[in-house]
Amino acid sequence: MPAAADAPDKADVLVVGAGFSGLSAALALVDAGRSVTVVEAEPRVGGRTRSGMTADGQWLELGGQWVGPEHLRLRALIARFGLSTEPSGRTGAVVRVTNGIRTEIGEGEEALAVLSPADAADVRQAAERFAAIVDSVDMASPWSTPGAESLDRGTFADWIDRSLGSPAARSYFSESCEAIFAPDPVDVSLLHAAYYFGSGGHIRSLLGVSREAQEERVTGGASAVCVAIGELLGERVVTGAAVRTIRVSDGVEAITRDGARFRARHVIVTLPPPLAGRLEYDPIMPSRRDQLTQRLHAISVVKLYLVYETPFWADAGLSGEGVLDAGPIRVVLDNTPVGYPRGVLVAFIEGADTIGPGPTDAESRRDAFLAAAVLLFGARAADPLEYLEFDWMSEEFARGCYSGHLAPGTWTRYGPALTESVGPIHWAGTETAGEWTGYMEGAVRSGERVAAEVLAALAAEERGAL
Amino acid sequence: MPAAADAPDKADVLVVGAGFSGLSAALALVDAGRSVTVVEAEPRVGGRTRSGMTADGQWLELGGQWVGPEHLRLRALIARFGLSTEPSGRTGAVVRVTNGIRTEIGEGEEALAVLSPADAADVRQAAERFAAIVDSVDMASPWSTPGAESLDRGTFADWIDRSLGSPAARSYFSESCEAIFAPDPVDVSLLHAAYYFGSGGHIRSLLGVSREAQEERVTGGASAVCVAIGELLGERVVTGAAVRTIRVSDGVEAITRDGARFRARHVIVTLPPPLAGRLEYDPIMPSRRDQLTQRLHAISVVKLYLVYETPFWADAGLSGEGVLDAGPIRVVLDNTPVGYPRGVLVAFIEGADTIGPGPTDAESRRDAFLAAAVLLFGARAADPLEYLEFDWMSEEFARGCYSGHLAPGTWTRYGPALTESVGPIHWAGTETAGEWTGYMEGAVRSGERVAAEVLAALAAEERGAL
Repeated sequence: MPAAADAPDKADVLVVGAGFSGLSAALALVDAGRSVTVVEAEPRVGGRTRSGMTADGQWLELGGQWVGPEHLRLRALIARFGLSTEPSGRTGAVVRVTNGIRTEIGEGEEALAVLSPADAADVRQAAERFAAIVDSVDMASPWSTPGAESLDRGTFADWIDRSLGSPAARSYFSESCEAIFAPDPVDVSLLHAAYYFGSGGHIRSLLGVSREAQEERVTGGASAVCVAIGELLGERVVTGAAVRTIRVSDGVEAITRDGARFRARHVIVTLPPPLAGRLEYDPIMPSRRDQLTQRLHAISVVKLYLVYETPFWADAGLSGEGVLDAGPIRVVLDNTPVGYPRGVLVAFIEGADTIGPGPTDAESRRDAFLAAAVLLFGARAADPLEYLEFDWMSEEFARGCYSGHLAPGTWTRYGPALTESVGPIHWAGTETAGEWTGYMEGAVRSGERVAAEVLAALAAEERGAL
Repeated sequence: MPAAADAPDKADVLVVGAGFSGLSAALALVDAGRSVTVVEAEPRVGGRTRSGMTADGQWLELGGQWVGPEHLRLRALIARFGLSTEPSGRTGAVVRVTNGIRTEIGEGEEALAVLSPADAADVRQAAERFAAIVDSVDMASPWSTPGAESLDRGTFADWIDRSLGSPAARSYFSESCEAIFAPDPVDVSLLHAAYYFGSGGHIRSLLGVSREAQEERVTGGASAVCVAIGELLGERVVTGAAVRTIRVSDGVEAITRDGARFRARHVIVTLPPPLAGRLEYDPIMPSRRDQLTQRLHAISVVKLYLVYETPFWADAGLSGEGVLDAGPIRVVLDNTPVGYPRGVLVAFIEGADTIGPGPTDAESRRDAFLAAAVLLFGARAADPLEYLEFDWMSEEFARGCYSGHLAPGTWTRYGPALTESVGPIHWAGTETAGEWTGYMEGAVRSGERVAAEVLAALAAEERGAL
């Protein structure tokens, strides 16, 4: 066989997936003077971010959207491409519905005020205990956390049940977690929950300090950042090409469903790990990596919108934020873009509620959202202009959102395989980011981390070849 | 497009996978007069059963092997093909190594005798409590078990930790579970553990009544049954054809990696569910099914053999069975085939021990087994004729053994999708069997169950077409 090493179609690096991690990796590699090809299964770039459009032409975020003040790498990209951010949410009272009783919690008022003093104290002690665990987590290698095996041995759900004495306090704690913590507590261990809260600074939200990671949005939609990077990368990005096979042989070759072939010296796989585990590898993945991806799942989630003539809740001094203790909708937020005269509420249906016996079709999901909105904001909420939704589970190249999570016992047994390269195959994606995992920021950081890893590998090979 | 409905190459049923479930389904369908094609990725039939060979030509079981007295459907197949079973194991004392102390437990002696009376009582109360939970499980639909959500909320590992007071009792209970229960207790919920113990009658083993499910083997190796069915099915079985895509359109079409196409009215997928989840489906799987397979993993396991000149342990009145409380090898059994003059010990390395920091190569696994055998049976164990092993995790079309298991919270949220057909796509495999799941018997029962399901569907279609 002729040597293909110098074939002109062989890039330095192949990137599988054109979401935030893949594109930021590609950008860093191109900035460093490397040849790169990005192969994306969808006809569009953006990964788990995506813009929708209202009937009157306003963009809305169907996927990832939150930009926090510490999201420095994402903010650097936003600035580089001349984009800007805008505040999200609205000032005003938060509404809580507990046991059918509706309570408004004014700004500056402590959310815990809805509870009896004893229940509030119970929530506080559990949150403080959890915060101490969060502080103890080794974010770079969770398996090295003191007592990791013990923390990884039970589910977070079980820990919640055992750490709060009264049903009301337990329910409040669970809802607060659900409001800021996407994975179902039964799906993950205490170690993973602590890692996730620590990674995203969520513990401050849980303690009621702020929801700062969810402070801003990208004007025009987060995927505009990906579109801008895609434009810069130009013909290096190939969309509509679903990689199915990665073969290691004199570098790497990726083969798509349609039989298109891409060759490179190294490949970066940025797919959500449960989907990366479905690719065909030749040779097959080491057991540690394969067993890891068998224990990693994406969250069941559908994102829902109601668009109203006006943000009428603001007239009543409400922020549009609501928390409910029953039903498939547990959290509602105002997600009206700045300058858009209508009022936009967003909600999520997660976990078992997406699958049944919850509302499993668009009509019943809309009805559930309407019912929640009426409970929170009154009868006017029954009359929206429009309902939109996006079911991430049904997307072939996502099969869940916002990100992938590790089952109990997985970090401590298989954790290192999440980021460990396998020969010329490297891993990125928000799941691989110790900081801001689950966020766009985590995706960008993972992309930049893996670009540095590949640049070092390329340089070492070139030194070796001299 | 021309109608392909009557194309001569279109079988009534396509079966993906030629293990016990696929072959027993195909056999039942052929018995009922249906046209069937079985497509198998490996060059051989047998699935997760497989014969190895010693240097002197003796078969040994590298995979599934146990035939219990209640394995009636498997026994019917064995009889139909003129094969026979033989007893496994050997009478004699069991050796236990606890805290470095070696104890022999004579036949008829209670294993719990190695513990102090208080610790033995602790083990007994936990086993009785667990047995009561096992008895409560609804085997046909575990999600309907009374209190299912609560039982599915925490890990079995956590339940063990909390249900036994003393470290010695906890350790004994865990080892006994490990000896008869392959999944790592951290990987599954109390509900799944109870389901699995109930399905296999293991609770009697745990209570020390008997190890009856592991009483016999098929003479010549279990895969001989599959070979015999394969011979009967003849050209209906296509080996070396790895199905990658299943397309639903005017029946179903399966496409292999090499581009071979197989058409049928219905398809039965018998792959381990984690691998079934990696196939490409067109249209894609419903969310419930996809989320299920994201939460189902195969066990990490390597099966190890040491072959000795003679079964020297028998001279000392030992059965060859040993249990150790430390190290990567926890259970050793005599697995000498009847009539073979040598002595054969079998052991397993499971879970985290397969991945590291445990012994991750053949040489260090052999050394670990030798060390355990010497501890149990003395210095003569240091000098085997031969070492054999089979690493099921590294098999591309198994990626673990003995079977797949559901993560905590999975039964109660996604359980029905394990067996629920999706249009003309039906599911079998030992994981789908309520009775004897994880065993060859479960595989056969699942094959016969799915064959009946497909026969009914075919008949209904034909009635509809009249």
